[in-house]
Amino acid sequence: MTFIESLQAAWTRNDSLLCVGLDPDPAKFPVHLQGRNDAIFEFCRSIVDATADLACCFKPQIAYFAARRAEDQLEALIAHIRITHPGIPVILDAKRGDIGSTAEQYAVEAFERYGADAVTANPYMGRDSVEPYLAYRNKGVILLCRTSNPGGSDLQFLDVGGGVKLYEHVARLVAEEWNGNGQCALVVGATFPAEIARVRALTGDMPLLVPGIGAQGGDIEATVKAGRSAAGSGLMINSSRAILYAGKDENFADAARRVAAETRDAINRFR
Amino acid sequence: MTFIESLQAAWTRNDSLLCVGLDPDPAKFPVHLQGRNDAIFEFCRSIVDATADLACCFKPQIAYFAARRAEDQLEALIAHIRITHPGIPVILDAKRGDIGSTAEQYAVEAFERYGADAVTANPYMGRDSVEPYLAYRNKGVILLCRTSNPGGSDLQFLDVGGGVKLYEHVARLVAEEWNGNGQCALVVGATFPAEIARVRALTGDMPLLVPGIGAQGGDIEATVKAGRSAAGSGLMINSSRAILYAGKDENFADAARRVAAETRDAINRFR
Repeated sequence: MTFIESLQAAWTRNDSLLCVGLDPDPAKFPVHLQGRNDAIFEFCRSIVDATADLACCFKPQIAYFAARRAEDQLEALIAHIRITHPGIPVILDAKRGDIGSTAEQYAVEAFERYGADAVTANPYMGRDSVEPYLAYRNKGVILLCRTSNPGGSDLQFLDVGGGVKLYEHVARLVAEEWNGNGQCALVVGATFPAEIARVRALTGDMPLLVPGIGAQGGDIEATVKAGRSAAGSGLMINSSRAILYAGKDENFADAARRVAAETRDAINRFR
Repeated sequence: MTFIESLQAAWTRNDSLLCVGLDPDPAKFPVHLQGRNDAIFEFCRSIVDATADLACCFKPQIAYFAARRAEDQLEALIAHIRITHPGIPVILDAKRGDIGSTAEQYAVEAFERYGADAVTANPYMGRDSVEPYLAYRNKGVILLCRTSNPGGSDLQFLDVGGGVKLYEHVARLVAEEWNGNGQCALVVGATFPAEIARVRALTGDMPLLVPGIGAQGGDIEATVKAGRSAAGSGLMINSSRAILYAGKDENFADAARRVAAETRDAINRFR
């Protein structure tokens, strides 16, 4: 099954467009986990097991593991998801971008070492920097398009001719040229609903990964109405901190489950 | 000493604008190293020790380590360089690019975990995605501007208004707005000498990291004439594969030293 097929099945089976982002920050962990060598794995495993029937995908952010020499815990976490929740695809959020020979190494890292189903990537270096990921025909490649951070406009909102913004150019390039095998998706921030609608118009039913709900302040109703596909799906709406740190004690996984369920249901009201 | 000061000192002391790129591919290692658990470290250590007096910086490419679960060997390699060749700055070639809270984690990875003196980064997500690196005031941040790969033109050569190309806009943005503390440098590929000259004109004496010499076919004379600063320096001209794999047997480090010396001297003829 390809990443896109697996995502579509999870949308339906779990009636969910929610992507649970795994950005583990040990300083925010419950006291009973602090100091353990496997705290990052154990924290994320608990979140995953508590939310797997409420999510359409999981998205570990590799920076949080790399900053703490915890690559082994990331390997164990993704292996756990694949064995215990095989229907939920895993997106490795790495935002890599490099020349082809180097991108081949990053593709080995994401797909062979970690066994991720999809990876996020940066389009700045162009098509041949993305092809090594696309060569894994059953994997997904999720390109940055319009990001939700304040500096996102510095480049992405530049007019590249005829009133077309750079992010729109990227959306077109991916939809019309890079997506020949139907493996691509795009990142579009929740803080810009009008731009989500624009990307949706340019890309048909391509899946959109939407960060910015929750801690970053994006509006769920506006996001869903702007971004849903004709079938009422097409979205992976990411929430990380609001779910991960919903509770602060031993019951943190229950609190995470409650917030994940509320977020899924809030999203579903507007599909 | 800051990254830029350390680089300037190495330019002078070693009379060299050569950056030795460390892209270790075990399939290309001499037979006597193959199968060793520490083959990547040992290969790179031999290259480093053989070329440290001929280079102005070393640039390990993290993808080659990450693809092989060799983060520990990358840590050991950078530690070796800092102890044994303390005057040669280390650039971690990672090309990270993410929102501020995630970029903080990547900055910890590059500067605290690995102890690199500078890191490469991608400008697509704008200023706040770069600020966490700049917060380390003695470290360098080397932004992608004009890359040497075939797809480099897909985005970077777009006209963003008034005949200004995206890569020129990035060069200006970095020189005029992001470089307040003098920590920045830019990546400009050797395959486009006219564009190196354009970036040099826009950025004063900002250091330029120039990949594309050697395996990628860039011309040394054109590169140096286009990119040298008024002082006849200002460049980190990278060569990776041509040096690393100059020899195939137990004398590979001697062969690497010979090619590194030839490359340094070829560069110096046009300064």
